[in-house]
Amino acid sequence: MRRINAKRVLVGEPLDTARLGETLLPKRLALPIFCSDPLSSVAYATEEILLILALGGVALLHLTWYAAAAIVFLLVVVIASYRQTCHAYPGGGGAYVVSSENLGQTAALTAASALLVDYVMTVAVSVVSGVSAITSAVPALNDHEVVLSVAFVVLLTLMNLRGVRESGRVFAIPTYGFVLVIYLMFAVAAVRLGTGQTIRAESADLPIIAEGTYTGLALVFLAMRAFASGCTALTGVEAISNGVPAFRKPKAKNAATTLAAMGFLSVTMFAGITALAMTYEVHVAADPTELGLPPGTATSTALAQIGRATFGSWHFLFYLLQAVTAGVLILAANTAFNGFPMLASILARDRFAPRQLYNRGDRLVYSNGVVLLALAAVALIVAFDAELTRLIQLYIIGVFVSFTLSQSGMVRHWRKALASPATPREERVHIHRRLAINAVGAAMTALVLVIVLLTKFTHGAWLVVIAMPLLFLGMKGVRRHYDQVARQVDVAPDTRPRRPARHHVVVLVAAVHAPTLKAIGYAQGLRPDTLTAVTVAADEAEAARLRGAWEDHDPGLPLKILHSPYREVVGPILAHVEELAAEPATDMLSVVIPEYVVGHWWEQPLHNQNALRLKARLLFTPGVAVIDVPYLLESAKGAKAAEAAESAGREG
Amino acid sequence: MRRINAKRVLVGEPLDTARLGETLLPKRLALPIFCSDPLSSVAYATEEILLILALGGVALLHLTWYAAAAIVFLLVVVIASYRQTCHAYPGGGGAYVVSSENLGQTAALTAASALLVDYVMTVAVSVVSGVSAITSAVPALNDHEVVLSVAFVVLLTLMNLRGVRESGRVFAIPTYGFVLVIYLMFAVAAVRLGTGQTIRAESADLPIIAEGTYTGLALVFLAMRAFASGCTALTGVEAISNGVPAFRKPKAKNAATTLAAMGFLSVTMFAGITALAMTYEVHVAADPTELGLPPGTATSTALAQIGRATFGSWHFLFYLLQAVTAGVLILAANTAFNGFPMLASILARDRFAPRQLYNRGDRLVYSNGVVLLALAAVALIVAFDAELTRLIQLYIIGVFVSFTLSQSGMVRHWRKALASPATPREERVHIHRRLAINAVGAAMTALVLVIVLLTKFTHGAWLVVIAMPLLFLGMKGVRRHYDQVARQVDVAPDTRPRRPARHHVVVLVAAVHAPTLKAIGYAQGLRPDTLTAVTVAADEAEAARLRGAWEDHDPGLPLKILHSPYREVVGPILAHVEELAAEPATDMLSVVIPEYVVGHWWEQPLHNQNALRLKARLLFTPGVAVIDVPYLLESAKGAKAAEAAESAGREG
Repeated sequence: MRRINAKRVLVGEPLDTARLGETLLPKRLALPIFCSDPLSSVAYATEEILLILALGGVALLHLTWYAAAAIVFLLVVVIASYRQTCHAYPGGGGAYVVSSENLGQTAALTAASALLVDYVMTVAVSVVSGVSAITSAVPALNDHEVVLSVAFVVLLTLMNLRGVRESGRVFAIPTYGFVLVIYLMFAVAAVRLGTGQTIRAESADLPIIAEGTYTGLALVFLAMRAFASGCTALTGVEAISNGVPAFRKPKAKNAATTLAAMGFLSVTMFAGITALAMTYEVHVAADPTELGLPPGTATSTALAQIGRATFGSWHFLFYLLQAVTAGVLILAANTAFNGFPMLASILARDRFAPRQLYNRGDRLVYSNGVVLLALAAVALIVAFDAELTRLIQLYIIGVFVSFTLSQSGMVRHWRKALASPATPREERVHIHRRLAINAVGAAMTALVLVIVLLTKFTHGAWLVVIAMPLLFLGMKGVRRHYDQVARQVDVAPDTRPRRPARHHVVVLVAAVHAPTLKAIGYAQGLRPDTLTAVTVAADEAEAARLRGAWEDHDPGLPLKILHSPYREVVGPILAHVEELAAEPATDMLSVVIPEYVVGHWWEQPLHNQNALRLKARLLFTPGVAVIDVPYLLESAKGAKAAEAAESAGREG
Repeated sequence: MRRINAKRVLVGEPLDTARLGETLLPKRLALPIFCSDPLSSVAYATEEILLILALGGVALLHLTWYAAAAIVFLLVVVIASYRQTCHAYPGGGGAYVVSSENLGQTAALTAASALLVDYVMTVAVSVVSGVSAITSAVPALNDHEVVLSVAFVVLLTLMNLRGVRESGRVFAIPTYGFVLVIYLMFAVAAVRLGTGQTIRAESADLPIIAEGTYTGLALVFLAMRAFASGCTALTGVEAISNGVPAFRKPKAKNAATTLAAMGFLSVTMFAGITALAMTYEVHVAADPTELGLPPGTATSTALAQIGRATFGSWHFLFYLLQAVTAGVLILAANTAFNGFPMLASILARDRFAPRQLYNRGDRLVYSNGVVLLALAAVALIVAFDAELTRLIQLYIIGVFVSFTLSQSGMVRHWRKALASPATPREERVHIHRRLAINAVGAAMTALVLVIVLLTKFTHGAWLVVIAMPLLFLGMKGVRRHYDQVARQVDVAPDTRPRRPARHHVVVLVAAVHAPTLKAIGYAQGLRPDTLTAVTVAADEAEAARLRGAWEDHDPGLPLKILHSPYREVVGPILAHVEELAAEPATDMLSVVIPEYVVGHWWEQPLHNQNALRLKARLLFTPGVAVIDVPYLLESAKGAKAAEAAESAGREG
């Protein structure tokens, strides 16, 4: 007889708060959980550079080396910079926390807006690019990108609602698999190239039809745009510094070590893939016609071309590469599923977000934040029709806003430490070093932010430039609201509850039957100063009928019949109640509503429509309390008994 | 400062019940309101016959004469039959009422299901065919059929929500315009043909590529299918007998006269259009390729071809014909907007439908029924992509089910009258005549129902054959539910309200602030037998903080702190309340919930989430009353004041 509870099947049984410690992460699980985003982005970062440079034709492709080198340098700087944050903020040093403590509320909320936007973008971009990896391998799925992407977001949501540790195990396999297959590919390529073989990509002989000739300033701008696009490789680096509290002790050290490991993997994989792409002469373009191919021709991603060329006739390894690439890309979204709810909870704690986002759900994850992120990502995927090229334009801006604010905040943090006389002498050397690292990081990321803004604004990034201030204002508004409410409900410590001097009670009557009599008996039990019943009649016949029934039952209180020429129930009652409540003699007025309770949702629309509307309106009438006296119909009793039996069965 | 109220702008100010008499209809307005459906169907009935016969090639087109003759005969019989109903049921004699009184509940509900389905079909088919008349005249609108159709349904809904009399005026123009232009067309054709001119339709020389050769039984079946399709001309005939109470006095006589006038117009227009179609040799087919035209060629409707051929170079008259045709077709849907809500109200009165459908809205129309009909029609239009050829297959079955039941019911009605010794001798002759008319009507419509079922079932009508029993069962279910509820709440006349022996009150506490203190004061004012406060804490620190605040304010009642390891608020409180309610000493338990009231809908999600979920669950707990003690925040007071100012402005 036990009813299946869909929530329990999908997310598991509730967990005790005391088990929170058990879900702390060892480094080997923290790496895939927090780093699938930065690691997976090497799957497309090289291609993004090539795509932009292709606008200028084959002649410009050599600039890829410079762009890639700049990105590698930037990666090293940013990772070094964030390692300082892990040490300085073992309680979790996301851009929001660091900005908040060092740069003030405006900077903190700017960082928060940037991060929130970027978490949503991470989910959308990663899932969509993972799905396109799948559809390029299985062309039969080609027109179902939106449905597949949404299905994967739902899957990730359910996994995350189950809780962080279990999801870590699931995520370890494709992330480590991706790293291993990429390194295996490098090894095979090294052996083959080292033994004098020539390897060329399938697209090496395709022409690239340039959009135009780029010289002078235009060339510089195009190179900057290529660099900016390649900066997708940096997204998600901040996730570890945000998630320090989820690490096992020593938290800060473990987090910094994991960050360094991630940096090493990212840099080597990105550099290797870029080198192979240049060696194999991979040619890509946004549209197949730019490669001299007929419109609609399916082209492979740069990474797929490199894999196919490297592994040659070992088709199995090529398909394995595609599979782990798709896997790690989709799981990259998980970085956001860890970061977004945690940030939302911190914002809710600081009263910048609705308080439902503050608490952990019954599986110890911030369930509401997880669901909110999933909804936003699904909306974005559906709105952009799961097209990666359009989505990716919205990416990165938020990342560099938060990078810049976070590093600037760290600079201020160390300067304050130096200024404090309490700082011991032997630490000052370290602090000077950390300050220098963060200062370089702040300067570099600020510069890149300007480049990204300049080169991507007209390609869709303006949407982000609109969304961030809106989020900023929304958070300010929520805080202002909560502050106002707190001021309004605050009472002096010596305030005592005040008993109303006179209590008037009105019982609403629709017909004279058992629920009404029960409500009247209840109201009489309250021993109010005055007690009346009130009803509505559309015409004299109805009024006479009600009056007759009332006299039959003689309930011992007067019945006031309101005339309602418009056959409306809510309006006249509301007017009557407001009139009573406004009388000077009334101190407190209670309205008793007899309510039918039915057992099935589909029975609900058959009853209580007027009661529902009336209750909603009466809430806004000052000095009026609303009392629901429910009358359980048999179907409700049945439903209640079934539920009781079920919970008894669960406990037994 | 007066706020614009969207509802008032769209549907007008509320009307007093006393003004109901003013909305009664003179015959000249009743005709367009109740008859736009049967009148407009002549615009496509002929074409439906031709379309089916075209499947057998040009050779079979002469069968159109026979099909049309049979339909004219059927029209005369059905109209004569329904005139008897108007006389016998001046209070409104729809198929439901007649079946209910004479054939019992099962027949009545069958008729009701058939009518409800058909009203929805009328709206969908009429609006879609009206829109296709527009799109054939204005090809630029060709791909927007669904949006246009939905827009017209919304327009009709708003007009009907305004009320019946005003809509009558609007509808008179296109209906009478349609009749006049058709008669004008007949006059022009008569003069031109009488003076020896030869008129041929634009499609007269097109071949018809037959689907196959029809001989023997197949030929009979095709002829029957053509006849069944032409029977669309009969839809809506019953609307007048349903709407007798809306006529001015003498209601029955006026209704019967209007019905006769409608019959004369329908028969002459249908016969005339069919005769012209045959004379001009109009060729139509479901697909242009069957006429030897390239796929996708736009073809004109039969009526448009007749109009173009008749009016020749008088293009103005041709466009006028198209305009009034489109107008009358879209307004034909209005027949259903009158019939459906009235039938739904009768069903609600008999407790077969939710009681919200019973009452007239504040504009004296059955608003909920109007909205329900509109929603169903929109769903159908969207689901069938506004394709007339697919929608029209679902039509007619319901019509003939209700015709048959209605006429059979009338036969029983007259037989009962003859059997009654109270019937005066001089009336018996009339009754014999009426009985004979209705018996012929019942037999004819039953025969046609069989033909329609046989020939249309596999072409989509099966959907209706499924929908009708579902509606039937739904109505039975609603009645059973209301009957059960009525039995459960019924009390003996001498039952008096019972005052609970012991009253326990629990105040829910989230924090110690003004709303909580207000609720405690209120609860103390109830003078209960016991009074406790209860709160939830996730950990010991929170519990200690709450206990401290409680002691500061010393509210004079004990605070029970529930431990909630899952950080859940609703579950532990519910369990605690259920425990208290189940104690033998508890006779009545009230739960007092302090509730924040905010002034803006967007502030709502920031508060009271737990209170809302708790209230929904507490309703189902036997012996528990829920008391909302609202605490108005300033924004709520502001909203309230603005509303008061507005209503003062309206009254002043």
